[in-house]
Amino acid sequence: MENIRVIIWGFGAMGSGMAKMLLNKKGVEIVGVCDRNKARVGKDMYEVLGIERGERKPVIISNRIEDVAKEGAVDIALLATDSFTKTAFEKIKLIVKNKINVISTAEEMAYPQAQEPELTKEMDRLAKENGVSILGTGINPGLIMDLLVVTLTGCMLDVEHIEAKRVNSLSPFGRAVMEEQGVGITVEEFNKGVEDKTLAGHVGFAESIRMIGDAIGWPIEKIETQMKPIVTTVDRKAPYGFAAAGNVAGVNMTGQGYVNGQIKINMIHPQQIEPEMEGTFTGDYITIKGTPEVNMSIKPEVEGGLGTIAMCVNMIPHVINALPGLKTMIDLPVPRAIMGDMRDLVQR
Amino acid sequence: MENIRVIIWGFGAMGSGMAKMLLNKKGVEIVGVCDRNKARVGKDMYEVLGIERGERKPVIISNRIEDVAKEGAVDIALLATDSFTKTAFEKIKLIVKNKINVISTAEEMAYPQAQEPELTKEMDRLAKENGVSILGTGINPGLIMDLLVVTLTGCMLDVEHIEAKRVNSLSPFGRAVMEEQGVGITVEEFNKGVEDKTLAGHVGFAESIRMIGDAIGWPIEKIETQMKPIVTTVDRKAPYGFAAAGNVAGVNMTGQGYVNGQIKINMIHPQQIEPEMEGTFTGDYITIKGTPEVNMSIKPEVEGGLGTIAMCVNMIPHVINALPGLKTMIDLPVPRAIMGDMRDLVQR
Repeated sequence: MENIRVIIWGFGAMGSGMAKMLLNKKGVEIVGVCDRNKARVGKDMYEVLGIERGERKPVIISNRIEDVAKEGAVDIALLATDSFTKTAFEKIKLIVKNKINVISTAEEMAYPQAQEPELTKEMDRLAKENGVSILGTGINPGLIMDLLVVTLTGCMLDVEHIEAKRVNSLSPFGRAVMEEQGVGITVEEFNKGVEDKTLAGHVGFAESIRMIGDAIGWPIEKIETQMKPIVTTVDRKAPYGFAAAGNVAGVNMTGQGYVNGQIKINMIHPQQIEPEMEGTFTGDYITIKGTPEVNMSIKPEVEGGLGTIAMCVNMIPHVINALPGLKTMIDLPVPRAIMGDMRDLVQR
Repeated sequence: MENIRVIIWGFGAMGSGMAKMLLNKKGVEIVGVCDRNKARVGKDMYEVLGIERGERKPVIISNRIEDVAKEGAVDIALLATDSFTKTAFEKIKLIVKNKINVISTAEEMAYPQAQEPELTKEMDRLAKENGVSILGTGINPGLIMDLLVVTLTGCMLDVEHIEAKRVNSLSPFGRAVMEEQGVGITVEEFNKGVEDKTLAGHVGFAESIRMIGDAIGWPIEKIETQMKPIVTTVDRKAPYGFAAAGNVAGVNMTGQGYVNGQIKINMIHPQQIEPEMEGTFTGDYITIKGTPEVNMSIKPEVEGGLGTIAMCVNMIPHVINALPGLKTMIDLPVPRAIMGDMRDLVQR
């Protein structure tokens, strides 16, 4: 049987990480890479990855999607370029029109109906018209603060209140993340960045809250989110970031989902460099009040970069198998690692 | 739209618990109950449950399945009678032949292909022939030591070793469970009970191990299980059980799944009354070695009785929606609580 043929659009930390993961899997091959970074365009993917190509065909990185998204020659595209549905949408359209399935890392794509209902309908229509499926996923949104919450409610008779808390370290991340999250700046600069929306913080609370609400049947009437600086009292130093005492070591994101005027879903997501320096220990925590109660913790937190890479690659067979349309994590069977031949998981 | 119509076969702790849960849900009704217990046969379900019937029609408990499993009048049957596929099979056949979907609490039915491949094929064939679906589920097997493990591997690039540990208390359970698990007997009696197979212990390791193996692509070549007494050094007293110092307070079940001669899946499941009396704290623990590692805990453990009741009821819409055939938890979308109208979840 032929290998599963994958293209990757966006070859930064996520896209190249997925490539490395795929090269260690059986029954799957990378048949194209699209990236706009001039340092990579025209080079062989294996050279960029620093991996021996061996007997494999070279995969020359192109900055034109038409060169790689070829109808009939590709089963699925991994799109690792955006955070927002609006910008991912145009790329997804180009892929889907070539009858290729898509998995997107864009946080908003994990549940696009939350903030882009019209684009969601349009994507669903396009996918069905072309006989393929579209999924957004990642570690969060995608698993930790939503799908895992939903799964744990499965053993409950009644749910009264949900709290999902992800306390993670930004230390393993690069310079871009430090900038997006405001690491090292003053509180004043941080507040200005929140106001003029140049600081990204975490994208995904609206998506996670709506996914949970729709899954368990809570009509969410209002979502609020807050973004506050985590001010350090000691100097903190990470490989790509430094926060002097009194400045910002990261961002504390909080969000609430309301049902009947009450907060029913609470999201707490502080991210910072070197959290241990002030006694903060990282972890993922889900506390669900109801019958029976569920108090889950994962310590330390699942590493976000690796987790997102794995979620996208591991969902490939489910997306290929799905009936055509726009899918979310609550529509498909549970994610799972792929330790065997990927072809065994695909129903052709 | 018409309510979803449910029948319950077996009205012990599990079946009657599901009935109570269903009576608190919207868009679903119980249209029949089958039970062989003479104290219950001929009585109204509401009387047996001690719940005001109000405006609802009486549901007279019958000991003949033909009286309740009526083709065209029932959407799904909850079968809460057995632990083993072999005995559940005959009942499932009777239900399926009337074109009624089935959810079974039988532990082996959570992954019947593990120990009953022939019956599994036969059930799949029967289900397809009659246009319905069959699922086995529960808290464990069904979620804690298998589906939740599988889900957590979804964020992993590679899996090296899995340990699932469920440390639970038997104190909330009744006299039947005390007897099945050997609570209060001597070590000699326990060992005899293991030898002549009169002690049940936990049923489900083979099912959980195979489910995980098949999900992530590990070819399990051998499964071993052990059953040892938990001997108490102090007197322990629970509502329905008593173990004197020196006698058996419960059972320590362990199991291993082998891949290429190595133990890759480790199952540890000690169950006993009053574990805190000797410093054992209950909880569910999943430790997955690989990239990235995942160390999950749920403390205290999810209560088994309530958890099984909830899993069975919460899977009703997924089973009705599924394409015909025998399904397992890894085939269907993730379980979830049902806080809204159950009809909204069913695609008719």
